[in-house]
Amino acid sequence: MKNIVVIGGGTGSYTVLKGLKEYAKEGLCSITAVVTTMDSGGDTGRLRDEYGVLPPGDLRRCLVALSEETELMKELFQYRFPKGSLEGRSFGNLFLTALADITGSDEESIKETSKILKIRGKVLPVTLDNVDLCAILEDGSVICGETNIDIPKHNPDLKIEKAYLDPKARAYKDTLKAIKNADSIVIGPGDLYTSIIPNLLVEGVSDAIRLSNAKKIYVCNLMTKYGETNNYTATDHIKTIERYLGKGVIGSVIVNSGKASKEALKEYVKEKAYQVDYNAQEIYDLGIKEVVEADVMSKKILIRHDSKKIAAEIMKLS
Amino acid sequence: MKNIVVIGGGTGSYTVLKGLKEYAKEGLCSITAVVTTMDSGGDTGRLRDEYGVLPPGDLRRCLVALSEETELMKELFQYRFPKGSLEGRSFGNLFLTALADITGSDEESIKETSKILKIRGKVLPVTLDNVDLCAILEDGSVICGETNIDIPKHNPDLKIEKAYLDPKARAYKDTLKAIKNADSIVIGPGDLYTSIIPNLLVEGVSDAIRLSNAKKIYVCNLMTKYGETNNYTATDHIKTIERYLGKGVIGSVIVNSGKASKEALKEYVKEKAYQVDYNAQEIYDLGIKEVVEADVMSKKILIRHDSKKIAAEIMKLS
Repeated sequence: MKNIVVIGGGTGSYTVLKGLKEYAKEGLCSITAVVTTMDSGGDTGRLRDEYGVLPPGDLRRCLVALSEETELMKELFQYRFPKGSLEGRSFGNLFLTALADITGSDEESIKETSKILKIRGKVLPVTLDNVDLCAILEDGSVICGETNIDIPKHNPDLKIEKAYLDPKARAYKDTLKAIKNADSIVIGPGDLYTSIIPNLLVEGVSDAIRLSNAKKIYVCNLMTKYGETNNYTATDHIKTIERYLGKGVIGSVIVNSGKASKEALKEYVKEKAYQVDYNAQEIYDLGIKEVVEADVMSKKILIRHDSKKIAAEIMKLS
Repeated sequence: MKNIVVIGGGTGSYTVLKGLKEYAKEGLCSITAVVTTMDSGGDTGRLRDEYGVLPPGDLRRCLVALSEETELMKELFQYRFPKGSLEGRSFGNLFLTALADITGSDEESIKETSKILKIRGKVLPVTLDNVDLCAILEDGSVICGETNIDIPKHNPDLKIEKAYLDPKARAYKDTLKAIKNADSIVIGPGDLYTSIIPNLLVEGVSDAIRLSNAKKIYVCNLMTKYGETNNYTATDHIKTIERYLGKGVIGSVIVNSGKASKEALKEYVKEKAYQVDYNAQEIYDLGIKEVVEADVMSKKILIRHDSKKIAAEIMKLS
């Protein structure tokens, strides 16, 4: 049985974890999700500010992805109040926040929620520290707060030069242990600067990944994101990650060879997002040992990885 | 095994249900809680107004009382956010409200929550209709809204002449069935006008109790309540209930013979609440067949029924 660690936090992690869960059920792998905890927007940001909890949003999503509870419980956990004084508030976020107060810590809250949701595997925050993500843009200006980078309030045509955490964050001990004991470490897919790199900025994490004997697999995004990865090819994504993780750490890369429909792309064009191009040779030239080109797209109208397809490719590599 | 139906809604029901649950676990009884749904105050009132759900507060309390989930889950369900934008909001209320939206009805929400909380027995709303409790005072003025009667915004020295529902409410079919099939029906303890009588005002409920072959037991309150039952003796309580239920329906009454400590009473005197006096002969003179005089008080500082003691007396009568 392979120990697989998935690093990320957003929708990308959700998709991968959901797919891998089926293999875990068959006893073919055990799963640990390492989750970014720098989110500062929306309901999550509000709970973080008002109650001093770890941002619950990404944790919640990963917990649901690995949950073996009923569909109703999962739906409840992902439920948002549609109107009234609770408009936009996520039930699962409130659940984690209330439990953190009752149990006395985020750590216990996540552990107890994991039991209640009957999760297959583990969900670990990358850090227990309360820190913010900041970015230096190419014009030298600094933006702080994940939500300001994710939904750019700055000029989105300016390139992000460097991301850092303020203050510094120390890695959660269980996370380092999971990385050390992993057989495979899956990085991505997910928003480069807001879901992936924040994990690598936590002290000890990049080192632990580098030192781990695990196979390190990068799952490249399907789409670019305006304000974060304008015109990025797969090579650009990898190079950016290597700036934080170190060169030669990633051994395998999965790129998508499927083509999105014109209809699906139309919505993305409005947000200046385009399908990520790749050139396999260019990736090999970076020193990557293995490039998997596969159609790993969902056939639905939202351009997402397909849970089953991406999990199958990860299992083949693991 | 005796089918016991407990009619009420507030803290009194919680106490009785918690005590009876232990007998149910041993297979000695099955429990159905019939719960008032006219609350209009606090977080409950707000959810009712904004989301059109049945007032969740009393349902929540009864669900927790019968729950066999972990202490943590029960604590979570009773949790109130202590500060911030969610200050005063009850987690369990939000749970029921979210599930009502997801499942499409209050009925399903209660059923699913019952499963999730692993309740021993059933919790049934007295009605699914959205109605308000109103009271006519002795000076002829009318107050509407349960919270205005419960926490009197009127002159609390004025006696309540009559309570009614606006508009009329039809009984929930499962509730009528439970009453019909009961071996014992326990009415009270609970605030007379805000937890007990609202149930009796729902069309079909008093008739069903009257026609049921069950033994009808009234558990009298320990304390009077300023603005509702000023200076009421046990006889006054019974007479008031009989105005709504009909004379000769209640067969047995449990009154408390224990004396509260001076220390405990001190807090109540501030709110003009006093221990309920009783005269057993006076109660027999009303036509009650059985008067149980027992020390059923908790020894804690809050003057409440003791779960074990009151359940034991109910089981002896059943």
